Formats: sequence, C-alpha cells, structure tokens
Amino acid sequence: MAAAMAAAAAASPPPPAPGAGGGAARVSAGRELSCAAEVGAALGSAARHGFDFLCLPLFHPRARRERSREPAAQRAGPATRADLLLCGRDWNTLVVGKVSPWIRADSPLEHERRNSEAALAQELDFGAYLGVPAFLLPLPQAQNPNLARLLCAHLHSGHHSAMVWVRVPLVAPEDAREDLVENEEPPEEPPEEKTWLWWHNFRTLCDYNKRVGVALEVGPDLPSGAAVSRWLGEPVKAAILPTSLFLTNKKGFPVLSRPHQRLLGRLLKLDVQVVLWGAPRHGSKPLSAYLQYLEHLGQHRPPPSAYELFARGYEDYLQSPLQPLMDNLESQTYEVFEKDPVKYSQYQQAIYQCLLDRVPEEEKETNVQVVLVLGAGRGPLVNATLRAARQAGRHVRLYAVEKNPNAVVTLESWQYEEWGAQVRVVAQDMRDWRCPEPADLLVSELLGSFGDNELCPECLDGAQPCLKADGVSIPCSYTSFLAPISSSKLYNEVRGCRERDRHPEAQFETPYVVRLHNFHQLAPPQPCFSFQHPRPEASGDNSRYRCLSFRVEVGTVLHGFAGYFETQLYGHIGLSIRPETHSPGMFSWFPIFFPIKQPVPVRAGETVSVAFWRCATPKKVWYEWAVTSPACSALHNPTGRSYTIGL
Amino acid sequence: MAAAMAAAAAASPPPPAPGAGGGAARVSAGRELSCAAEVGAALGSAARHGFDFLCLPLFHPRARRERSREPAAQRAGPATRADLLLCGRDWNTLVVGKVSPWIRADSPLEHERRNSEAALAQELDFGAYLGVPAFLLPLPQAQNPNLARLLCAHLHSGHHSAMVWVRVPLVAPEDAREDLVENEEPPEEPPEEKTWLWWHNFRTLCDYNKRVGVALEVGPDLPSGAAVSRWLGEPVKAAILPTSLFLTNKKGFPVLSRPHQRLLGRLLKLDVQVVLWGAPRHGSKPLSAYLQYLEHLGQHRPPPSAYELFARGYEDYLQSPLQPLMDNLESQTYEVFEKDPVKYSQYQQAIYQCLLDRVPEEEKETNVQVVLVLGAGRGPLVNATLRAARQAGRHVRLYAVEKNPNAVVTLESWQYEEWGAQVRVVAQDMRDWRCPEPADLLVSELLGSFGDNELCPECLDGAQPCLKADGVSIPCSYTSFLAPISSSKLYNEVRGCRERDRHPEAQFETPYVVRLHNFHQLAPPQPCFSFQHPRPEASGDNSRYRCLSFRVEVGTVLHGFAGYFETQLYGHIGLSIRPETHSPGMFSWFPIFFPIKQPVPVRAGETVSVAFWRCATPKKVWYEWAVTSPACSALHNPTGRSYTIGL
Repeated sequence: MAAAMAAAAAASPPPPAPGAGGGAARVSAGRELSCAAEVGAALGSAARHGFDFLCLPLFHPRARRERSREPAAQRAGPATRADLLLCGRDWNTLVVGKVSPWIRADSPLEHERRNSEAALAQELDFGAYLGVPAFLLPLPQAQNPNLARLLCAHLHSGHHSAMVWVRVPLVAPEDAREDLVENEEPPEEPPEEKTWLWWHNFRTLCDYNKRVGVALEVGPDLPSGAAVSRWLGEPVKAAILPTSLFLTNKKGFPVLSRPHQRLLGRLLKLDVQVVLWGAPRHGSKPLSAYLQYLEHLGQHRPPPSAYELFARGYEDYLQSPLQPLMDNLESQTYEVFEKDPVKYSQYQQAIYQCLLDRVPEEEKETNVQVVLVLGAGRGPLVNATLRAARQAGRHVRLYAVEKNPNAVVTLESWQYEEWGAQVRVVAQDMRDWRCPEPADLLVSELLGSFGDNELCPECLDGAQPCLKADGVSIPCSYTSFLAPISSSKLYNEVRGCRERDRHPEAQFETPYVVRLHNFHQLAPPQPCFSFQHPRPEASGDNSRYRCLSFRVEVGTVLHGFAGYFETQLYGHIGLSIRPETHSPGMFSWFPIFFPIKQPVPVRAGETVSVAFWRCATPKKVWYEWAVTSPACSALHNPTGRSYTIGL
Repeated sequence: MAAAMAAAAAASPPPPAPGAGGGAARVSAGRELSCAAEVGAALGSAARHGFDFLCLPLFHPRARRERSREPAAQRAGPATRADLLLCGRDWNTLVVGKVSPWIRADSPLEHERRNSEAALAQELDFGAYLGVPAFLLPLPQAQNPNLARLLCAHLHSGHHSAMVWVRVPLVAPEDAREDLVENEEPPEEPPEEKTWLWWHNFRTLCDYNKRVGVALEVGPDLPSGAAVSRWLGEPVKAAILPTSLFLTNKKGFPVLSRPHQRLLGRLLKLDVQVVLWGAPRHGSKPLSAYLQYLEHLGQHRPPPSAYELFARGYEDYLQSPLQPLMDNLESQTYEVFEKDPVKYSQYQQAIYQCLLDRVPEEEKETNVQVVLVLGAGRGPLVNATLRAARQAGRHVRLYAVEKNPNAVVTLESWQYEEWGAQVRVVAQDMRDWRCPEPADLLVSELLGSFGDNELCPECLDGAQPCLKADGVSIPCSYTSFLAPISSSKLYNEVRGCRERDRHPEAQFETPYVVRLHNFHQLAPPQPCFSFQHPRPEASGDNSRYRCLSFRVEVGTVLHGFAGYFETQLYGHIGLSIRPETHSPGMFSWFPIFFPIKQPVPVRAGETVSVAFWRCATPKKVWYEWAVTSPACSALHNPTGRSYTIGL
C-alpha cells in the first residue's frame, strides 16, 4: 500500500494551499537603497521600474553620530522620518526595514556595545511600530551572541510578527578573490565553511526561531556546488544581487554568468525573493532592464515534472505514515493511489513476464495459474492481473483477498459486473485465510515509503502457506535506503509537533512521510533493510539491525535521515523512490523522514554513522535509531514508546 | 543575605538524610567470583571473610556453548542454578549478577549477535526474576549501540529496579603497559581518552538513564590525574580491584601503591563500593587481609572539614536560589545563617578597621559615626557593629533597616532589651527610606552565591543617597566567578525538575544553589560580573555582559557552569566561596549552578566559551547565558522567560 497522498488525506491539519511550493511562479523582486530622502517618491519610482518592495534604512546613517555624544545626542527634532509619510498598508507590505550597518552589538568596547544595543532596540521597536513585514539585519562576523540576545529579546516580546532576514554573504568579504591576492596566508578553515557557520551559530543561539531567515548576499565569487547546497537546507528568504554582478550581453543588456544563473535557479526553487542593490551600471539601460532579465530567468526555468506538480503544496509538510493494517483506508485514499500512472503498469508488466515464465506456450490452454491478490483494495491489482493474463494469453484464477469490509463492497460489485467467476472475493485478513488450492502467484502492494514500514514482511509471511513450493511473490524483494540530511525547516516542523499529553520529545521519535524540499542531503542513500518473498528458510525473524556510515564532505549539521525504498517486482521490473533510480512519474510515495532530537554538528570530512533497528513482536513492529558518529545521540524510540506499527 | 541552608529550608522536597554523603563511613566491599558451584557456600565464605556482597555469574560459562547449536541447545535440565538456593532477601541484597563476558551484542556476525541478544535478554530477565539489586555488565569496546538498545529495552520494560554497573576499565586493555612494549605504533587518540569515551558513548545512547552507573576496573597502570578527575563527574558506583594490584609490605601483607591509594581515596568520596577480584596472592594471607587493608584505608581518610560536615546530606541536592527581596525569610533561615562561625567575625573586623580609619584617635570621643545596617534581619550585623565599635573604642549611632515585618519584631525586642537609644529600628525597605542624617557607613549582607544574584546592586544603589560623599559601604565590592563543569549527576537532577505546567526546558534556564559533589571542574573559575559601592559615577546601569573562554585539557562533556563569588568587605578583609580562596569554615553559601540544555562534547585542547548577561529592568533582574564554543548552544532564559529575580 502506497503512502504519499493517502497519508496526506489521513493527516489532521489541512495541507497548505496548492501552488505554495516551487515551480515557475513569478519572481518577487525588491530594490535595496542605502538612503531615501523621500520615501514616497522612492517607493513610486521602484514601483514604476516594476519592483514589488523596497529595502530602506529605518534610521538615517547620520544617526550613528548623533546617538553617542553630546551635544548632538540632545539635538531636537524627530530621530527619523515619520510614519505619516506612508499609509499603514504600504509600510506593512512594501517596505523591508534595514537595520543600520554601523551597529556592532558585539563590540569589545563597552561604549560602542551599549550604544549599539540602544540603537538596535530603537530601530527594531520603530520598525515594529511602523509594521514592516521584515527586517534586514547584517551579520558582521562569526560570533554574534549579543546581537542574537537582543534580537531574541525583540522576538520574544510584543506581538509584532515581522520576519528577520539575516544578511549573510555567500563568501566572507575577507575571502573574496581580490583580497586573497594580497593575503598570502592560507585561511585557517576552508573559506566555504565560513559564512554558513556564522549563520549556523547565530540561528542556534536564536534556538532555530522560525522568524529568523537568511538573506544571501551574492558576490562575484561563488563557492563550490557542495557549499552552495548547504544553503538549500536553510530558510533562505531572499537573495541580494548587486548590479555590479551583472555582465553585459552583446546588445548591452545586463545578464548573469552561467554559474550565477545556476545558483539563482537553485535558490528560486525555495521561493526566495530577489533584492537588487546598487546603481544601474549598463550604459543607459534602466533598472527595469535588470528586473526584466530576472523575470526572464524565472520564466525559463525547467517546467516542473509531473511528480513536482502532483506534490505541489505538500513540500516539507509532515504526515504520519499510514497504518493500513490497523486502520481501514478511506475510499478517496484508494482513489488517489489508483491514479498513479506508473505503478500498475509496472505491476502488469511483472505479472505478464511471470505468467510467460511459468506457463510454456504448449500449456497455455491447460495450465490455469492461481493468483492471490493480497490486500486487493478496490481492485487495481486484480485488473492489472487480468490485463497481464490477456496480454500473455494465459489463464488465471484469482482470489482477491481484502480485510477492509468497505473496500470489499467495491470488489464484489466489480466481481458481479465485470470479472465474473474468474475472480473470487475473499473478505478476510490474508494472515488468517487459507486458500482452498495452492497458489502460483502472490500479488500485493503493501509497501510503505520505507519499504517494510507498512508491515509487508509480516503480512506476506502470514500468507506464505498458501503458496506452492515453486510459487512466486510479486514483489519478490524490497530494500529500504537511508541518507543523512540537514534541514532546519524539517527540524523546526518536527519540533512543532509536540503534544501536551505525550512525552515532550515523542515527536522526535516518530518517522514522517514528507515531500522533502528545503533540505540538504549530506551523502548518497545507502541500503538499510532487505526482505525477500517467499521468505528464505535460513532467514531469522523479521527484526533487523544495520549500522550505516556516510562520509560527509562539507561542514554542516545533521537533523535526521531521509528514507526511501526500492522493490523488485519480478525479474528486472521494479519500482523505486530512491532519488537515483526513482521510477519516472510515479507519485504514490513521498520519502520518509526519521528526525533526531538534537542537531549534531558535523565537520567536513567526518563520518556520520547511524544504527537502525527494526524491532518486531507478535503484536507490533517499530523502529529504533541512534546516531553513533561523529557523536552519540540518545537511542530514539526505545521499546517503541513513541511510535509503533500495530499488527 | 546568604544562600546555602536557607535555600535548603525553602526548597520543597526534604533533603536526603544526613550522612548520605561522603566522609569516613565504612567501606562497603564485595567479592567477585568467576564461577561459584555452590552459591550458598560461596556466600557464607565471603561473609566469613567480611565481605558485604558477592558478584556472581548469573549463568554458567558453559551456557555459551549450549545456547548456540544443536544438540546441546536442546539439552534437558535447568539452564542455570535455581532461585531456591537462596532466600529472596539474600538474592535481593547480597548478590550482584554478572552478565556473561562472552556476550557480543555488537558482533558484526549476525549469528553471534542474535545469539548474544537472546542470552543477554535471558540473563537480565533471570536476574530481574531473582531480584538482584545490581547487574555487572562488561563494556567490551568503543561502540556498543546494540548493547545499549538491549539494555534500554530491559530498563524500560517491567518494574524491576536493579542498577546496572557498567564495567569499564580505567585504561583500555590494549593500552596497558605490557601491550605497548610490543606495539610500537603510537595510539591514535590519547589512550587516556579511550575508556571514558566508551562509557560516554554508551550512557549517551542510554539517554543518561539514572539506573546505569559505572564499575571502574582498576589495573596496575593509572592514567594522569586529569584523566582520573573526569570520572569524578560520573555516576561511579563501584571500583573493581584485582588482588594482583596489591603490593606486599615488609610484614607480607597486601597494600596498595601510593597512586592507587590516592585514586581510591578520590573514589571513596563518591561512596563507591569496592569489589575484590582474583585469588589471594600474598603467601598464606587470607582474603580478609585485603579487606582489612581497604578498611584501614577507609578509616584513615582525612576527616571531613567543618564545611563538609555541615553540608553532609546536601551533596548535589538542587535548591532554588533565595529571593529575599520578594519573599520574607523565615525565622529558622535567619537562625541557620547566624550560626556561621566566620562570616560575622569578618564583618566585625572590617567595621573595626573602617572605624579606626575614619575616626582619628583625637576625635574618638566627639565623632559619632552614623552606621546604617541595611537588611538587618534579626540583628547579627547590628551586634557585629556594636562589638567592632567597642573593640575600636569609637562611638556609633545605628539605624537597623529591615523590610521583613516579622524580623522587625526581633529587632525591636533586641533594641528594647539590649541596644537602647544607640540603635534605631526602621521597618522599611531600604530603597524607599531616607535617613534623617547623612551616613558614614552602610553595612549589609545582601550577597547570594553568585554575588549580585540577590540584587545587592539594586538595593545598595537605592540606599546610596543616604551616604555621605566620603561614606563607605561594607562590602565595598564583589565579583562573581564561573567555571565550566561536567556532571552527569547534576545534568540528570536538573532534567528531573521538569514541571508539567512550565515550558518543557524551563528547568535548564534556571540556576540552582547546590553543594557540588559528583562533578568535574574543567578549568579554573574566571571572574564574571563586578560591582562597587558606592557606585562609581561613570558606571552605566547594573546590566552586565561578559564572554569567558576556558581552555580544557581533557576530552569531556560540558553540562553547565559552577558559579562562585568573592567580596571585599573593607580593605583586605573579605569573604569568598571561590574554591581557590574559600574562607575557611564559612558555610553560609553553597555554589550556584547554571545548567545548559544539551551536553556539549569537548575535545582535549578545545576552548569552552560562554556568554553571560545580567539583564536589569526596573521590575526585575535575570541572567541569560549561551555557550559559543566549541559549538553554539541556544540562548538560555531569553527575556527571563524561565527565571527572574523580582525587585
């Protein structure tokens, strides 16, 4: 049984509105100014050029001088422009408030620090009073604990809900190429680490506050693709592009280099807004030429795939995995899965091939293959079997076994109206029922996003006595895969799933079905648990234990593990949701996500190791997991205290 | 106002019974056997030699062979000795169950792993059935995730509450000296790190389960003192000593080398039990000779100091810091503090010296010094002042200011019966009252374990207008100190303070007054916040911000920060609870402990950095703190959400 949309249907909160996710939506663009004497005029001008919003200093740069010393500090008159210059709705939607860049809240000089503290509080308060939707806050250095404290104080107090865009350069100023020429000392840490670590330190101090996002300042130098990938797990809200970044094409228009185009393409997938900074530098070309180019880039992104379209609105939306064994699925859940354009044609191919292999041409009229469709639902696999038999020119006798009495109604009406005597509907649990004749073929679709997580092994083991000694199961094997990932978005979403009457960390001991989007995969997936059907005699029980080790090339932080599966249906015909081998166009399964309680810092070149267990008792099955390198975590979900799958 | 015992009195749960802590109590000793054919006889023999308990294998060593393969696996007859051999009470109090050393739950060989899993479950279950008070579980290697999982499964299930003593060698077998001679390769990590890390990994996987303790196996080679210190922050329950460890003295009796004596002395402070292992090796000397020597060592430990005696029973017992400004203290709290043998004599000395300095001999009859005792409580500082004045032969006029109306009753009766017109009792808050005449001297005892944490700065600032321009405050300055510490005990105690109606991590955002005992200080304390009285004109407000960095020499894990204070009363006369300068015999203050939410791993040679803030508004004061190196933590207690001190 597949898991993606059905789980969505089963989850209690409604999914976000479709269209909220990535795709070729319009690029939202803003204009950043260092100073605006007339805010109304500046806004009008930006709008005429086609910008959606403006980034403006909240206070005039000269306020720096006037804060600190007498007599200027006592100067009469307003400290900055008045709110009356714009109507509330304009402040509210069109202006991002820039915090003064001279503020050094972490200065070792007490005078400068205290002065910065007062100025920062004043600017944040005034921005909250104006009602700006976001602040742009520069992150000047690696360690900013006092800045973080002041920001947290602002975020925790009052009811203003502005976002804070923390302005982080993609490459630290001192590592920019011009600088390195003069400075011959090799940098201590790989320069690519630097600014991500600035951000990571800062947001960790802010305890992953959801209102703190990133505004990435893009310069002429770009780090490696791996270093850029790291940002894809972060809440990047804006990309700041200086006009100086743009090259000039043959016709004199501003364009971006290929690497910068690629970077922007990756960021736009996260729905970042673009902020343009600096004066026009391309002859007489107006600012709108830059904007038109960005718009052009936005529209010429590769169109979303069928899978992406299907998943739109479900990006990073956590769903509890289905428990089709304990809960009876709803009609609409079956309906969604039956629409998968790939899955059932693969099944049909597998059954076709199997029938041809089992029944030689000369027996085709006499040999009737007995096929058990186990977990028949509303009948898609019965139809696939019948189509395959027709296609192969072989005879089959089917038993459609289904324990959900509601789906059995549908099966019986199909049987009465379409299938006839060739199919018998059995309203029983496959683990209890014994077939009146030995079966040639078991056909089932009991797999979850993590392969065995909907208890396919236990169900098929229960039905195995019905199978002939040389009988075949479709699927004949499946393997789950795990990959370490970093995603502050998912970490925060999981943290938000705390429930009052559960253990306060139970939300971290449960896997989630989720369309992974704002995440960074730290290493390729590796195989975890494998099962075969019919079960080999030598195998033990269905409990499993596996330790996996992943080498991670960039400094990052681990938030959990993405889970996928591959299954071999028959011969070379299979299904996969592992990214490297994903069945094209198949949408029945989103990945699964196993969170960890505490983010684990990982240095470049270190190994992430994880121990995974599948624990099985006669009544339930569950997973336990623990990180064992670079540092040990606590064991997650011991004895299945937070999550089990009922048998 | 001092904090130690009063806070104890104020805390809600009763403190543990006195005598539970360290001191020269009897050494509890056990005998470890590899095999005992007759358990009753073995127990009798051990008791005759003077042992308190026995460590016995739960299953016979040959069970290894019999678990795995046919036909032995099917052998009839009991798997081990029956429970009937001892009465329940004996199993319950006299036998520690040894888990078979051949068990390899983390074997990469699936057959061996599954066999080990089954054997471990059987042994733990059987031990629980017998009701043994503790298990002795060997930790065979650095990574034992599966062993941890199996143990957690046992600990989480059922109602048996046995302790698990995890057997860890102090020095890894492969690093023992004999081995190093042959093996010329230098070891990868300092060998001293190794086995502590084995333990740290294991208990982290077990999520610091309180029932999992350490049994340290002591061999002939000892690591450095710093490496031993690390164990003092761990729940060491037993020290295992082989008889081969003992030297022979002139009379042929077994004795330990000086370094081993020192080690044992340090461990006995944690109330470890000693387990003796191996056959007697000292000629004809019986086992009891070893025991008598251990007993001798136990009795010849240095006797507990007055402070240790006073603090007995309060070791590692968390208390909420007093809030004497918001809450009126109780009579018994005053009573305890007044008994401090050191504090008031230091005050008397300070006042004496100050009076001599302010009043020249020739003015001694005419110059009457006006002294304000601020927060007079039940009068100990009034008495100290009167004694000092008598001693100096100077005249004083006193105002005893106290806001607690209950204590004022005591003051007024003292005044009526003893002090007379020389003392006026003022029943007011010192911050509101204005003295009818300018004061020469302010005397107060408003300090907490962290110096300013009972709001001395705000109170004395409030009273400062009463002071002459050249007036003096006793104390005239104070400084808080911080040191990083590791203590699984305190981490666990804090974790246990979770309350249902608070934020689930609020207990980690509150400091605790605590007699630090089972802890390891990672670096010497450094000064944090300083205050002076009268307040210098140039100083800002009473908010403070300080970043401290500590170099840590051994690999360890950070759990929080110990806080202390020093105060200068007058001239060179002061008080201190900083360990290096602790006022001998003074017991009025226990240290303070600032926890952190998540243990932070620290490698040898790394720097622990912490940012500390004292935040002050007109209504309240609070601390915020964050670790910034080797990795950032979240900011603790932002905006004082979990802990404030009311003004």
